Amino acid sequence: MKLITKKFIIIALLLLSSSLSHAQTKPMVIQEQGSFAVGGSVKTNPGTFDPITRTPEGQTFHGDHAYVFYQIPVNARKLPLVLWHGIGQFSKTWETTPDGREGYQNIFLRRGFAVYVLDQPRRGRASRSMDSVKIVPTPDEQMWFGTFRLGVWPDYFPGVQFAKDPETLNQYFRQMAPNIGGFDPGVISDATSKLFDKIGQGILVTHSHSGGFGWLTAIKNSNVKAIVSYEPGSGFIFPEGEVPTPVASSSGPVAAVGRPMEEFMKLTRIPIIIYYGDNIPAKPDPNPGTDGWRARLEMARLWRDAVNRHGGDVTVVHLPEVGLKGNTHFPFSDLNNVEVADLMSKWLKEKKLDKL
Amino acid sequence: MKLITKKFIIIALLLLSSSLSHAQTKPMVIQEQGSFAVGGSVKTNPGTFDPITRTPEGQTFHGDHAYVFYQIPVNARKLPLVLWHGIGQFSKTWETTPDGREGYQNIFLRRGFAVYVLDQPRRGRASRSMDSVKIVPTPDEQMWFGTFRLGVWPDYFPGVQFAKDPETLNQYFRQMAPNIGGFDPGVISDATSKLFDKIGQGILVTHSHSGGFGWLTAIKNSNVKAIVSYEPGSGFIFPEGEVPTPVASSSGPVAAVGRPMEEFMKLTRIPIIIYYGDNIPAKPDPNPGTDGWRARLEMARLWRDAVNRHGGDVTVVHLPEVGLKGNTHFPFSDLNNVEVADLMSKWLKEKKLDKL
Repeated sequence: MKLITKKFIIIALLLLSSSLSHAQTKPMVIQEQGSFAVGGSVKTNPGTFDPITRTPEGQTFHGDHAYVFYQIPVNARKLPLVLWHGIGQFSKTWETTPDGREGYQNIFLRRGFAVYVLDQPRRGRASRSMDSVKIVPTPDEQMWFGTFRLGVWPDYFPGVQFAKDPETLNQYFRQMAPNIGGFDPGVISDATSKLFDKIGQGILVTHSHSGGFGWLTAIKNSNVKAIVSYEPGSGFIFPEGEVPTPVASSSGPVAAVGRPMEEFMKLTRIPIIIYYGDNIPAKPDPNPGTDGWRARLEMARLWRDAVNRHGGDVTVVHLPEVGLKGNTHFPFSDLNNVEVADLMSKWLKEKKLDKL
Repeated sequence: MKLITKKFIIIALLLLSSSLSHAQTKPMVIQEQGSFAVGGSVKTNPGTFDPITRTPEGQTFHGDHAYVFYQIPVNARKLPLVLWHGIGQFSKTWETTPDGREGYQNIFLRRGFAVYVLDQPRRGRASRSMDSVKIVPTPDEQMWFGTFRLGVWPDYFPGVQFAKDPETLNQYFRQMAPNIGGFDPGVISDATSKLFDKIGQGILVTHSHSGGFGWLTAIKNSNVKAIVSYEPGSGFIFPEGEVPTPVASSSGPVAAVGRPMEEFMKLTRIPIIIYYGDNIPAKPDPNPGTDGWRARLEMARLWRDAVNRHGGDVTVVHLPEVGLKGNTHFPFSDLNNVEVADLMSKWLKEKKLDKL
């Protein structure tokens, strides 16, 4: 593109931007968007395919890939964000919030980041799985209501950052999706690592279950230049021989994982920030929905100390301690998600991860 | 928004547009984008939920909704497009093509349409299903290679509009997703009808299997103002008493569906266009991959004649007859998909469906 054309674009964008400053929402100016599958494996039946009889011989099955939808704004910052959902969820986690506001996908596009939303292997748009599975519709949503810390069913926590109209809860429950087969951390982190091979350096944003898969991905791929992790749930990686004893909770013990020191040390070479929300008890509590998070927050702090002891840069932020109250397990889609995003933006700036 | 602000926006957009006219691709200027679930049902266990023991009593399960991702460009045309995938597919059908070019999602956004891409109930991002299912990874892709008319495995048809590098075929096979439960035309068309309740009047674009579900949706909801159907596969709806005998083919008979006259008549009140691609035999053929399409094209013509005899406006276009050669079962993502889109745009203009 000629320089003069580039200058015109910038003028036009500035004009567009300023003229819209009083509109409810400014348009997003997207240079490129699209989707692709990444990673995965192939299974091939022995024999030769016959196109007339179409029997199984010689046929293939591609599965266990991740699926990615990406958007690159005009004049994007250097490092893209890869947004990775948690357990029982898919990329919807980062899209429109259950009450209809903008989620991290739009918020960070508007802040100039290229945004990649991921469906991990065996979930959502990446549901062609190498594993066999029986799926039965099993009512379980009141359990999730508690585990995701909206409240203690049927009551919401006082001051919880979640809209209380029925349609919001309807949308919230419908943003779940079954796992098409077992969790295989190798398969899952391989696909995400291949994504970073394809797109180059970037920032990984994980949630809950993908927290643990995210540490694995960063060990596998040095293109992961930073991690922002919302309420990582399990899979904290310590050096073998330094693994702490599991932390007991009324939802069961939270255990850590041991890996060779050279793998662990890779996690000391990138900045990492971890956020936890509100309504996590300070002491052991009989409510398993909240108490599991007390144990995970404690494990996260032990992990922070271990990584930093070995020269790393891990920060754990318990949101109520910095003045953000009422957050659930999904701070990035809670009613105050713009403030939650502001915290993340501030950290990215401090770590010089938001350069143009 | 004040009028003067609106004028500035238009000036800025024109400047942006003209300054980018020599760039490879112009940015897309999106006023609004997001996602939601629509339709579906809820199952509730009897009893009262206990948040401590978390047993099944009193728990709920939300499922069988459709999932929709939408983008509305600045200054959008009046009628949005709803893009609905076919069998074994999900919304990816309309996104980036297997060889990495833009699909209908981007092409029609660039042409000023609001675009809604749908995952029908029990597929992709709408995989929380009310039905139980066992899913087993079963190699079947050479069958689809034939049925989707890329060629006769392992050979491509001469001149086929499909890139022949291995990565394209890899992406193509990975854009499939299993059905999480049985096909229930009522569940599927109910959810899509609810989408039209929510968004108002629009144009439905169907493919293959969703062709039949699309006719049902148009009967249920008068907000469907037109249908563009690529290679509808089954479910052509005739008035009871006028249902033709099934058309035999080497992949099995293609049967039509009978419904009360008053339902059928709703299909005579909107413009409908149907496109079929190339490499469909003119006479019965032992290759079931291609011969099924001969039977479906024949049924589509019988249906066109029936609807038009009752005062309707159905056009069937066999693409080779209008000069577009080599198209597969996915004309909208084939190598010549911009020309295929041009045909659709021309028809929308003729029918005054593209007004601002």
